[in-house]
Amino acid sequence: MNVDGKPYRTIWMEPHDPRVVKIIDQRFLPHRFAVEDLRTLEETAAAIRDMHVRGAGLIGATAAYGMYLAALRASEEPRGRFLDRLEEAAEALRATRPTAVNLEWAVSRVLQAVRDAPADREPMHHTPVDRSPAKRVPADRSPTTRRAVERALAAASAIAEEDARHCRRIGEHGLPLLEELAGAKEGPVNVLTHCNAGWLAFVDYGSATAPIYLAHDRGVPVHVWVDETRPRNQGARLTAWELGQHGVPHTVIADNTGGHLMQKGMVDIVVTGADRVTCAGDAANKIGTYLKALAAKDNGVPFYVALPSSTFDWEKRDGLSEIPIEERDPSEVLTISGLCGDQIRRVRLAPRESGAANYAFDVTPARLITGLITERGVCPASEEGIGALFPEKLVPGPHVRR
Amino acid sequence: MNVDGKPYRTIWMEPHDPRVVKIIDQRFLPHRFAVEDLRTLEETAAAIRDMHVRGAGLIGATAAYGMYLAALRASEEPRGRFLDRLEEAAEALRATRPTAVNLEWAVSRVLQAVRDAPADREPMHHTPVDRSPAKRVPADRSPTTRRAVERALAAASAIAEEDARHCRRIGEHGLPLLEELAGAKEGPVNVLTHCNAGWLAFVDYGSATAPIYLAHDRGVPVHVWVDETRPRNQGARLTAWELGQHGVPHTVIADNTGGHLMQKGMVDIVVTGADRVTCAGDAANKIGTYLKALAAKDNGVPFYVALPSSTFDWEKRDGLSEIPIEERDPSEVLTISGLCGDQIRRVRLAPRESGAANYAFDVTPARLITGLITERGVCPASEEGIGALFPEKLVPGPHVRR
Repeated sequence: MNVDGKPYRTIWMEPHDPRVVKIIDQRFLPHRFAVEDLRTLEETAAAIRDMHVRGAGLIGATAAYGMYLAALRASEEPRGRFLDRLEEAAEALRATRPTAVNLEWAVSRVLQAVRDAPADREPMHHTPVDRSPAKRVPADRSPTTRRAVERALAAASAIAEEDARHCRRIGEHGLPLLEELAGAKEGPVNVLTHCNAGWLAFVDYGSATAPIYLAHDRGVPVHVWVDETRPRNQGARLTAWELGQHGVPHTVIADNTGGHLMQKGMVDIVVTGADRVTCAGDAANKIGTYLKALAAKDNGVPFYVALPSSTFDWEKRDGLSEIPIEERDPSEVLTISGLCGDQIRRVRLAPRESGAANYAFDVTPARLITGLITERGVCPASEEGIGALFPEKLVPGPHVRR
Repeated sequence: MNVDGKPYRTIWMEPHDPRVVKIIDQRFLPHRFAVEDLRTLEETAAAIRDMHVRGAGLIGATAAYGMYLAALRASEEPRGRFLDRLEEAAEALRATRPTAVNLEWAVSRVLQAVRDAPADREPMHHTPVDRSPAKRVPADRSPTTRRAVERALAAASAIAEEDARHCRRIGEHGLPLLEELAGAKEGPVNVLTHCNAGWLAFVDYGSATAPIYLAHDRGVPVHVWVDETRPRNQGARLTAWELGQHGVPHTVIADNTGGHLMQKGMVDIVVTGADRVTCAGDAANKIGTYLKALAAKDNGVPFYVALPSSTFDWEKRDGLSEIPIEERDPSEVLTISGLCGDQIRRVRLAPRESGAANYAFDVTPARLITGLITERGVCPASEEGIGALFPEKLVPGPHVRR
């Protein structure tokens, strides 16, 4: 999507230097547009953990490029244990954000691509604790190692491309929902969204925003109610900014406001993203999503969750009991940063003596979700609905889908 | 309640100067404790409109003292139309905050007290447009005018005293609810509250907080989840501060968090205040209350609204269609103030190009409310329940209660 009229993605390779991955450092948006260079695993892990990048798809793509940077570094070690280093890197990346399933998915995919690299006849340097059937990769810039690094980069690039392609497809599948609502009323379709499931949360287009951008581009009138999304205000900071850059009409609201708007008939549809969705359709998303789903149900407003299939956790069924909820630093609740004059300043909101709790996500039960918008189409938030779109995830056995 | 160990109310007369009403200017809390002098109607109206004071009970008491200050001023005009001036004052005060019913109630009560002042034999200076049966009050410091001013002060003081007394009674009636929960579990009773229905919202004790303070004082272990309550953050700023001053354990949370806590069994009871409750039990309260009531219902958590009877609007039945919802300045959403070093600074949260909507209240339908805690006891949020506690509000006729 465009920033000041110039097309950007949220992550890309520096064209003239294969050792540099570039990201938009989202911490300073909307007040300052900053691009950051990532050169190491450590920088990449910090960028994910400290939320220079965030959002399901972008976390996955960034972690994938982090695996590539780790492979590049490991290949330069004189007699290193290449696969060990990569597995350590995978562990380090997995530990950065516990809730986002794309992280695990992307890291594992790059690791597998490296393991699947064809071996040559050089000696192995792998420790015996690894029990994987993967082929062993020798260290010290051997042709095999170089091949593995290339495979890591190819896998990371494929993840990024696939993310953008899937989001574009989500837009195409979600568009008819908005067109139908537009056909049934005067004036714009009022979409409420929570947090940022926009192009800043992915490599491009976004999940929840993809149908909105597509509708806007095709002349379907849309207006977006943007939940500010405390404590980190991804809505007011990021969603409002990216919608504004693209020219989509929008209004920022406090997170408390959506229920009232729905009671008054001022919301036609709710579309959010997700950080993890179980095979039964329970959706973990930014804290507060559950409250909006309850209000939508109470007022007969359709509530959709948009996600690429990489966000499904096929291993989990009951979101409430099985999805770990990240608890973040209380300072994110007790303080907030914003623009003061031309300075970004952090101000304290609560008394110095008061503590805070900061749960980052909640789980919206499938029963409150009208449908899931995926790259393969729209389906009910149920095991049957999801299974019909993704039959290859079914595995034999009476009760198990994978 | 205490501030730094010294007992305060939120509004009081300056002991040595009957022309001065003193308030805690709550705009700078929790960062700075400031007391403001009110000497005129205009200063009082501004204090209400610009939220130096806020909260149902305190708005009423402040408006009542504002009527007294207006009466005092009108009595000093050489040949003024005393009652006309007071009616203009009443209009000006009523226009400051449209949702709080206590405002109308308190202003009318002072006006009536003045009208009921016994007239003497001096000539009247009242315009013919007034059709009220009230006795006419002459101007120019006549004995009748002085008597009317005294009556205005007596009425305002009575409103303030009654407010404090009713809140203490709310505490006594709500206490058994907390004691019962405490008896049924290990550890503290976890109470979630929204906005500030504390002593800062009344003259003393508070409504939602009154049972909490009483429980704490009597050794019933309580812990309060404090919704920060965007956009004005009355929870993080005021409720956290006053609970902290009184030593009640509490944790500040983003408004998005309550649903998750209830899903996880971490909330035993929700108690909020109200700005206006209809005779059928629908409750207008700070925006976002409705969302917490939905979550409480969904998770089987009892949801109580605590209010003095002055908060009932006996004229209204259907809260959703009949209660006007105040829309405030978008800047309250787009910016926020807090402590930066030792300065209180306002920072901008959203992009400069983005607008915001700022609805200050929402309506929680009676069906979501477990009970109302009033100065006369706890009752179901229904016309029958409320009528049983306040039978004098019943008027003849098949469908009408007043």
